[in-house]
This record gives sequence, C-alpha cells and structure tokens, in this order.
Amino acid sequence: MLRGKQSWWFEKRPVIIGEATVVGPDEGNGPLAADFDLVHPELDMQQKSWEKAERLLLEQASEFAIQNARIDRGQVQYYVGGDLMNQIISNSFAARSLGVPYIGVFGACSTSMETLALASLIVNSGSGSHVLAGTCSHNCTAEKQFRYPTEYGSQKPPTAQYTVTGAGAAVVAAEGEGPVVECATIGKIVDLGIKDPFNMGAAMAPAAVDTIQAHFNDTGRSPGDYDLIVTGDLAGVGHPIAKDLLLQNNVPMNDTVFGDCGLMVYDVEKQKVQAGGSGCACSAVVTYGHLLKRVKKGELNRILVVATGALLSPLSYQQGESIPCIAHAVAISAGKE
Amino acid sequence: MLRGKQSWWFEKRPVIIGEATVVGPDEGNGPLAADFDLVHPELDMQQKSWEKAERLLLEQASEFAIQNARIDRGQVQYYVGGDLMNQIISNSFAARSLGVPYIGVFGACSTSMETLALASLIVNSGSGSHVLAGTCSHNCTAEKQFRYPTEYGSQKPPTAQYTVTGAGAAVVAAEGEGPVVECATIGKIVDLGIKDPFNMGAAMAPAAVDTIQAHFNDTGRSPGDYDLIVTGDLAGVGHPIAKDLLLQNNVPMNDTVFGDCGLMVYDVEKQKVQAGGSGCACSAVVTYGHLLKRVKKGELNRILVVATGALLSPLSYQQGESIPCIAHAVAISAGKE
Repeated sequence: MLRGKQSWWFEKRPVIIGEATVVGPDEGNGPLAADFDLVHPELDMQQKSWEKAERLLLEQASEFAIQNARIDRGQVQYYVGGDLMNQIISNSFAARSLGVPYIGVFGACSTSMETLALASLIVNSGSGSHVLAGTCSHNCTAEKQFRYPTEYGSQKPPTAQYTVTGAGAAVVAAEGEGPVVECATIGKIVDLGIKDPFNMGAAMAPAAVDTIQAHFNDTGRSPGDYDLIVTGDLAGVGHPIAKDLLLQNNVPMNDTVFGDCGLMVYDVEKQKVQAGGSGCACSAVVTYGHLLKRVKKGELNRILVVATGALLSPLSYQQGESIPCIAHAVAISAGKE
Repeated sequence: MLRGKQSWWFEKRPVIIGEATVVGPDEGNGPLAADFDLVHPELDMQQKSWEKAERLLLEQASEFAIQNARIDRGQVQYYVGGDLMNQIISNSFAARSLGVPYIGVFGACSTSMETLALASLIVNSGSGSHVLAGTCSHNCTAEKQFRYPTEYGSQKPPTAQYTVTGAGAAVVAAEGEGPVVECATIGKIVDLGIKDPFNMGAAMAPAAVDTIQAHFNDTGRSPGDYDLIVTGDLAGVGHPIAKDLLLQNNVPMNDTVFGDCGLMVYDVEKQKVQAGGSGCACSAVVTYGHLLKRVKKGELNRILVVATGALLSPLSYQQGESIPCIAHAVAISAGKE
C-alpha cells in the first residue's frame, strides 16, 4: 500500500510484544476494570504528592510492559514518552528510573498514539529492535495544573471531562508475537477558535475528523476496513460532533464501529465524570488494557485508534488564546493475514 | 558503519537544504550577529506579550528556512518542534500557522538536536521527503516561567545562564544540496542530584559526557574525527566540568575542537549574561546560523552538536526534586566525500 502524504506505512510489520496498564480507583470502578494489570485502591498511591503518584503509575506500567513482553530491561533500546505535566516531568523521572535512551514528546492526550507511531517508525526503519512507548496522567495533577486543585471543590459544567488516572506502556519490537502496528497518520493542528478548557471534546472533534479523513485518503481505506475506530477522549459532547462532521464530509460512521475511549473507560451515567474521560492515559489504558486484549482474542481484527489532544497551556488560556488541537491515528491489526 | 545501541546511522544521507535563524537584540549584539537571518532590535518584537514574541520568532525562522530551502510550504510533509514553554505552546501555535502535520517534542534545551535527529530519521527511513525541525526560546518567557519575571529585577548568581531569545529551523530533505546529517545519538537521563536552577550547566555536564561517550562507542569514532564538537549550553561553569569528566574517562578534548554554543553566542566577558547562553534557541541559532555556514564554506568538514537539556519543571524544583538532564548529539558533515 502506498504511503500517503501524512501517513507512515510500516511494511516490516512491527509487533506490540507486550503492554501494560496501571490505573486509579475510579477506573477500577469502571466497566474495563478487569482489563488493567494493576488497580490502585487510592488516588495518592501512598505517595507524598500527586505528581509522585503519577510518576509511579508510569514507572509501574513501563516495568509491567517489559515483563509482559518477556524481555530484559536492557533490551529496551529507546523509550518514547510524554504526558500532560509542565515539561513532561513525569516522563523525565520515569525515564531516569528506566535508564534507557529517551525521546520526550508532547501531544497532550494524543501522546499515546504519537509515542506508538514514533516507536513503530524507529522499529520499522531498523533503528531499534525494542522500543517502549508510554504515557500517563493523574486526575489531581491535571486539575491542579490546568483548572483548579480538586481540594478547592470547584464546580464543573457538564461539558467538562474527567482526567483518567493511569498509565499505559507498550513494547514495540521488530519480531515476536502480538498485534501488528500497520500504519500511522500524523495530525495537523486544527483550531476552530474554542477557548473553554471545560469543553475540550468539542474543541478536539474537528482535529479527529481531519486526521480520520487524512488517514482514509492516505491509505485508501474506508470505515469498513476497521472493526472498530475509536477517538481518544472526545467524550459525550465531542464524539457526536465528530460523527456529525464526518457525515457532512460523506464519511458515515456506524455506532457499532465508531467509539470513544473517554466513553468506554467509565460508566458515564453512574460515575461522576461529567461528559466522560480524558487525559493522556485515557486512550492509552483503553487501547493497551482493553482493545489489544480483544484483538488478541480474535474479537477485533483491525482497529484504528485516533488519539486526540487539546494542546492548551494554562497561560495561553489566561491570555485569551484559543485551543490548538491535534489527533494522531494508529492502525493495529491481529497480524494474522 | 554499524549502528550502535543508542545511535541512528543515516545511510541515505539526509541533507539540510535550508535553515534559518531569527534572534533578539542581545544576540544581535553578540559575536555571531552577522550570521543570523534576522535580528529584532527590541525584545518584545512589537507583540503584546513575551509569549507572542517567542511564537513570532519561530514562525519567522520556519518561514525563512522554507524560503532558504527554495521549496513551497506545501512540500513540507512534517514539522517536528518543541520549546521550553509549558505544553510547548509556542510550537503548537507556530504549527497551527504552518498547517503541516506536527510532531511535538520536549527535550528542554536538547530540543534542537532531538528535532533534527527525528526529522533525519523520518527522511532517512523514506517516511517523508521534506521535514522541518525547529525550536525557539525567549529570555523573558523563560525567566517568567522558570525563575522570576525579569521585571522583578531579581539578582542572579554568576553560575546562572542567560536564555537566548531566538529561533532556529532547518529543512531536512532526501535529496538536494547542503550539509549532510550523518548520524544521531539519543541520550539517557543523567541526574547527579543537583537541584539549583541557577546552576544548570553543572547539572547538564554529566549528561553531555554520557552522550559523547555513547556516540564514540556506537560509531567507533573519536574526537579526532571531528573538526568541532560543541555542547549546547553548558556555558562557563558546565563546560569545564564536562571537559574534566571526559579527561577522567580517557577522552581528552582539545580546546580548539571542544566548544560550547552558550559560550559562542555572547561575548561572555562584555555582555551581562552571567555564565553564558542557554535555552532551546542557544544551540539552534549557533548551529543553524553560524556552524552550518562554516561547514558550507569548507572551514569545518564535520561537526558534532551535543545539545544539552535540563528537564526541570518549576513544580518539581519547588517540591525539592533534583534536575534530570539529557543530551542528544547529531553529526553533520559537509557531505563531500
């Protein structure tokens, strides 16, 4: 298949040989609880700060991913990671613990697929045999940094989303058993002028649509080529907008095929999560925890994960700027031709 | 040449077909003034905020790099960029203006070579024909975010460094005329426990040494293979430490071969820059503005740029954490065998 203008086709078929997810209590009370490697019963994970708790999540997910891949830590040639924190500090500290060459990235909640795309590119090009991709978020670090510390008890509108507490990591390898990373589509910035950090789903929806259309254009594929297409964290407000925009652009999506990780990670009706989940960990824990298990079981043959990111900064918001958004898509298949 | 454990060898010889640098007034008063494409006479660049000024620097450098490469903007397939700002917001906004698929990275002041390495990897692997790499920093945005707003007039110790106001961008292409990106070495996190954000050169020196040694191990090269090896921004305190550490590890460095961009961008004796320059733009404007001109003139045949990054966050510093540091190295040659 031809490689398109903004897509990478991984003709050497890099394989996800091991992945792991670690989450907090809210995710452990959600419908995907059984799919995670570890559920922490408390938000602080017995750490002295929320930031230390977030770091621990990523360190654990990375370690478990390496264990699940049945390799030694020394075999990991590169770690590609990022998170929501200023200066992606959770990743820098986790990379310090890992002790492997480190490529830090920032894509807000699109980080899960940005890191998986880059890890697959490195492996596919023969520039590394085992590359770890990882990301994390914590509800309390994100609220504190982007909105208000949770301890203030401020109210939120129903368009707001609930940042997932968790971490997901995956080992991409040149050879081995596991789901295959087929291709990736790198997104452009799309910014339609939305400025409300309590309505990020609506802000990100056009970016998801732009990347999905680019993916189909570049690869010659259509929705029918996938058993499931999930956006990262558009949630209850943004996901219907994305569906409508796709329909307007003559890409009709069936509800059984088109989902959203932010709507899957929680029971949105019962859990107090406003419009649904968000955060770097949202698409990471749903993909690495839940979806890859379904791919391995044979329930899904091929999926497209379109991780969406709202690249706002608290300072840019305070200065009256709109929210630049992006989405990166990665296609994963069972690998059995 | 064999590709080592943490290095990428670019056997297809990607070429820097165009590059550009834009700087502020202090850099315009420094010894490299004549090498920059544009010198702004005022720090605010007639923008309403320091952040908008920083964004403008990057937008201009990107545009000029594309012009200097003699290509259309539409030919740029990917933009790889990052900066020091929280959520690398300068790059997200500049990527919005560029309108090309965007890979955001964070490596603090190592970003210049992190982005050049990734852009070269994409081109070398055939995953893109023209990839733009860019970074920026602004003295006033960095001081405000990491230490104190300049307007407060706080004093600084002589170990502090002066963040370069500027931006540098380069177009890496599969074919064309220009210096060749030969290989890159991706660094590991090195953290020896230094916690002082006013002494980042000393914190970063061991990371530079670690990457330089890894580069020599991976490539089989030695200092004698380079006409110039520059660290990014170790400046007056950190650079002698790096030299001492290398000597202790049996890698003696000659002063005529081993330099530092933070000591080159200013007249450290005359300009009030404490120990020297720093910031994402430091190694970017020295490399893209000054060093590549010397390579093109034939004064230097092969150089190694070791961009150093102190990955601290103001929050991690306030919480008593030490500074995780990293360095990424890229080897560039005149391309004439």
